[in-house]
Amino acid sequence: MDKINLAEKLSLFSERWSPKIIAELNGQHVKLVKSLGEFPWHHHEHEDELFYVVSGWFRMDFRDRSVVLRAGEMLVVPRGVEHRPVAEEEVSLLLFEPASTVNTGSAGGEHTVAQPAWI
Amino acid sequence: MDKINLAEKLSLFSERWSPKIIAELNGQHVKLVKSLGEFPWHHHEHEDELFYVVSGWFRMDFRDRSVVLRAGEMLVVPRGVEHRPVAEEEVSLLLFEPASTVNTGSAGGEHTVAQPAWI
Repeated sequence: MDKINLAEKLSLFSERWSPKIIAELNGQHVKLVKSLGEFPWHHHEHEDELFYVVSGWFRMDFRDRSVVLRAGEMLVVPRGVEHRPVAEEEVSLLLFEPASTVNTGSAGGEHTVAQPAWI
Repeated sequence: MDKINLAEKLSLFSERWSPKIIAELNGQHVKLVKSLGEFPWHHHEHEDELFYVVSGWFRMDFRDRSVVLRAGEMLVVPRGVEHRPVAEEEVSLLLFEPASTVNTGSAGGEHTVAQPAWI
């Protein structure tokens, strides 16, 4: 029950596309991730995902449209919906999702982090 | 799948201690609440609660200690743990908790909002 400072946690790592767990509750994880560039298209079969922009901005591509998100904005991607995060500049994101969620979902591949670390 | 801007949502209401739902995922709700003053001591039997400070600051009292939280900081209160939020100035909080969570938990009373509204 210690407080978690997002800026402090973000200062602890620089790797991109590698989510770090900062909290767990009700079977859900809260994660931080730094992203730059294009992530693979994927979906999650059983998990809805929340993306919240801590700093910077990024674009979430869906098959039929895109949504630009800036600091202080969030988006829920429902299970089953294909999506692709694209960051033209480095963005720091907070994710809320079930503890079972694997970052690349259906896609797998080199970006897969099956067991994210706690920081 | 529209984006949710926290500042914009916060501009839509001024009531205190009355959580508003802004998103739902995996059986969890994301809520915003404005608080000022002392909330009753309570606990939640079955729900862990996450508090994230969007703006301002507040103090979370536990029976044996207190934690001060400022903008950009979060805290998870595990189920069963008695707590009391105290805001000496108005604070805007984001909550992440199961959809079943009632704000006053075990305590009930005049602050109870059994069915929070969506905004």
